[in-house]
Amino acid sequence: MVKYSNSQEFKLDRIFHALSDSTRRAILARLATGDAVVTELAEPFDMSLPAISKHLGVLEKAGLLQRHKDGRIRRCELNAGPLETASDWIHFYREFWESQLDSLASYLDNNKKKRNTRHNGKHK
Amino acid sequence: MVKYSNSQEFKLDRIFHALSDSTRRAILARLATGDAVVTELAEPFDMSLPAISKHLGVLEKAGLLQRHKDGRIRRCELNAGPLETASDWIHFYREFWESQLDSLASYLDNNKKKRNTRHNGKHK
Repeated sequence: MVKYSNSQEFKLDRIFHALSDSTRRAILARLATGDAVVTELAEPFDMSLPAISKHLGVLEKAGLLQRHKDGRIRRCELNAGPLETASDWIHFYREFWESQLDSLASYLDNNKKKRNTRHNGKHK
Repeated sequence: MVKYSNSQEFKLDRIFHALSDSTRRAILARLATGDAVVTELAEPFDMSLPAISKHLGVLEKAGLLQRHKDGRIRRCELNAGPLETASDWIHFYREFWESQLDSLASYLDNNKKKRNTRHNGKHK
């Protein structure tokens, strides 16, 4: 396991916290299709603008959203960089879920063989 | 973007919430080295057993930890499967962070070329 510094751990806390809400994940998915203003981002949700702004704040603190001025309008932009940090953290565990899948596959395979042996035995 | 059902969204909420705390991530890292009982898991932390148990509960709800009986002792085991779900969700954004890195690389490259041109110009 890679050793993370306190500030990296703090960043991971914020990134994973930002991802732990389906509204925030939906906002990221919307931003993946292009920049948007707050009212556009709020449109699909049955939520007040302050509630949406709170979600945008959480995404911004995690570094996943950047706001920039477009004349008098402030547009929101996806910043996917921190997701690579999260992906790297998760990647360490890949060998574990793959070995669990291998075990499950071999268990199912053995079960199938046993069933076939029993089935063939009955029809001899 | 893959469309997730409500129950899948709920699972993602729980998985990312479980990962949003450095103590819980450290517990997963410890479990990656082998099964452990609660007191073993609590050892590295300056935390009460009930506080650790609460963290274990969050990991268990996210499906990342399984408890099984070993005689009279209950051991905790890592279940990495849900991390694959989280990894799949994040993977969609890979092209975004990669294109951001490409843009940064070409910006830095252009800057370097400009600096070199200026430097060579001065020394002609």
